Amino acid sequence: MTSIMPAPRLRGEPTTVGDSQYVPAASRSIEHLATPALLLDESRMARNIARLRGRLAGLGVNLRPHLKTGKSLDVARRVMDGPAGPATVSTLREAEQFAEGGVRDILYAVGIAPGKLERVTALRRRGVDLSVVVDSLDAAHAVAKQSRISRDPIPTLIEIDSDGHRAGVSRKASEQLVAIGRVLHEGGALLRGVMTHAGESYACDTVEAISEMAERERAEAVACATVLRDAGLPAPVVSVGSTPTAHFARDLSGVTEVRAGVFVFFDLVMAGLNVCTVDDIALSVLATVIGHQPDKGWILVDAGWMAMSRDRGTASQKLDQGYGVVCDVDGVPYPGLIMAQANQEQGILALRSGADAQLPQLPIGSLVRILPNHACPTAAQHDHYKVIQTGSREIVDQWSRFRGW
Amino acid sequence: MTSIMPAPRLRGEPTTVGDSQYVPAASRSIEHLATPALLLDESRMARNIARLRGRLAGLGVNLRPHLKTGKSLDVARRVMDGPAGPATVSTLREAEQFAEGGVRDILYAVGIAPGKLERVTALRRRGVDLSVVVDSLDAAHAVAKQSRISRDPIPTLIEIDSDGHRAGVSRKASEQLVAIGRVLHEGGALLRGVMTHAGESYACDTVEAISEMAERERAEAVACATVLRDAGLPAPVVSVGSTPTAHFARDLSGVTEVRAGVFVFFDLVMAGLNVCTVDDIALSVLATVIGHQPDKGWILVDAGWMAMSRDRGTASQKLDQGYGVVCDVDGVPYPGLIMAQANQEQGILALRSGADAQLPQLPIGSLVRILPNHACPTAAQHDHYKVIQTGSREIVDQWSRFRGW
Repeated sequence: MTSIMPAPRLRGEPTTVGDSQYVPAASRSIEHLATPALLLDESRMARNIARLRGRLAGLGVNLRPHLKTGKSLDVARRVMDGPAGPATVSTLREAEQFAEGGVRDILYAVGIAPGKLERVTALRRRGVDLSVVVDSLDAAHAVAKQSRISRDPIPTLIEIDSDGHRAGVSRKASEQLVAIGRVLHEGGALLRGVMTHAGESYACDTVEAISEMAERERAEAVACATVLRDAGLPAPVVSVGSTPTAHFARDLSGVTEVRAGVFVFFDLVMAGLNVCTVDDIALSVLATVIGHQPDKGWILVDAGWMAMSRDRGTASQKLDQGYGVVCDVDGVPYPGLIMAQANQEQGILALRSGADAQLPQLPIGSLVRILPNHACPTAAQHDHYKVIQTGSREIVDQWSRFRGW
Repeated sequence: MTSIMPAPRLRGEPTTVGDSQYVPAASRSIEHLATPALLLDESRMARNIARLRGRLAGLGVNLRPHLKTGKSLDVARRVMDGPAGPATVSTLREAEQFAEGGVRDILYAVGIAPGKLERVTALRRRGVDLSVVVDSLDAAHAVAKQSRISRDPIPTLIEIDSDGHRAGVSRKASEQLVAIGRVLHEGGALLRGVMTHAGESYACDTVEAISEMAERERAEAVACATVLRDAGLPAPVVSVGSTPTAHFARDLSGVTEVRAGVFVFFDLVMAGLNVCTVDDIALSVLATVIGHQPDKGWILVDAGWMAMSRDRGTASQKLDQGYGVVCDVDGVPYPGLIMAQANQEQGILALRSGADAQLPQLPIGSLVRILPNHACPTAAQHDHYKVIQTGSREIVDQWSRFRGW
């Protein structure tokens, strides 16, 4: 039975954010956890990290991991080159939290809002090499102005739109690119180069298509850096990346660093793209069976969309995995069983339509583990990772997550 | 410009959970908030609460508000009859947090897992009238056993399946219903009656259909209570409800209490069902414009799915509102403008397909407010409500939210 009394902290980072109401004793098994709970298989995570590191080493390019997936100093330390980085973040809150934990080389990879520049300056004054991203003259002017006011040239990358997916300057708009570069370089900022993210790689059908997307991502970024250099502007950094393209790029000539985030845990969307297998997924949500509707072939559990997130990323893929693939307590998938529907705190498990499988016998109180569509939003629904190793039910550690902006 | 320095607490509840990195000074305007931020219009909320209270008073039935939407003691105190309740919760964490804040009459409205009964007992020993829900013989036996072990009869409602939506015993399975009732009543628990939730009302096309669903919800629950009473079992409570059926029930004879949650804030899904208007929505996410892609008709903001949630509840309605309806900083919708796509920390605003409207001129740094598809998951992405009044930009208070299980 679980207890809500505070218990001693385990080894690992001290908790600085989030709740810590329930901390398991060192020898505890996941069988005694309050559910729903977020499990992280450290063995699988280590394998995922080693795989991408091996690939990029072979291509002679550095990894600047995106820490938005883990939002945890414990995860960050395992995925970065060293305790100081380099790293990528998606919010200034992440930059502040990781800086607190000793990370010193951080790229904030979302277009900077002028109102956030004072926080950027404050972090830089604490010794953090925090760089920002712009894709417009207005934002470039704001960064240049803040650089002059703070007497600190803010390192800035120009975002390139390599695939029409979201923000960025198109390679075709070379005059605009150079104009933005000049505003930064001559206005007091530190023009550091270009960055792009091939978000459209998530919509690729085949590994071959991902490879082509990776080449496009590389070529567009390198071409834009060349445009800047040809105009007499500095562009030492060419930063590209997404988890799919990072794994299937064949050549990264001219690229100085690769960013990727979700590879650390992987998920069903990545498995659907054949970037990983279902067996590589390191994250799962532990849930308890609370009911049955035998006429409908339903098993009800105490994890709904609050625990899984509302992400339905596989809905647009060939194999729709509902709200997640259902595994036994040891992480082995039940054939054909998915979380077909979700209410706030209640998930409905059912066989996938057309599945050649039997509904498992899972009495009330049985534990299951659900693999998520998308690791980033699912992890974001939880304040801690309960860390386990493949094939074991022992909780070996607890790592805190943070959130907010 | 925003500051990350701690500032004095505002009036309101002390923060016991969640982060409190950014607390605005009392006179601050939303124009100085770090974005994205969650805004709560207290005037609209008060109007929404008064409307449902007025309706239920007219029907002579009590309200047992569902506190899962707000997850905030400040919101709870405004929606409950009094500081002690009654209230409904979706997790034991909510029960524990609200009990800490003085709530004493709580229904945990998700089927109880046997492993959670010790926490139920612990809360009841603290003087909380916490009741639970079962829909099976196995769960009934577990509750009866825990009642005997703890020498405290746990008040229990039997969940009724009134619409085939999720859990519950069907009215047709009257033998099973009576068997469950007997296990509870004779086994040491306190059989308190029946409860049901017409979740299918979210899929209704018309107000007329919602009224019919409300009648079905009422009739099924009352019939099941009658089955128990005819078998000589007690069933003093007949608890029904969902936000749509609570607003359009014409008759609630035999019902003792109504549960509803999302009505406190309302959202675009409820507006799509005509349960409210877009102008009733009390919750919005404040965001800053960070870029433009004029060729595509896109405006980019610093709120993505992490701030809005992945909920796309309007996707299955007549009017798909994307990730939300875009308003100006004062909360007035821009005609036809929605958040059409969302990345983790970046939203893409665009005119709805076929909209007879112009893209507004919103320079970088402009503020917008996004109304959510579904208030519960959107609010869950944030740790605080910045409280405002309709038509004013002044932050009059900050209320904490909690989360977890």
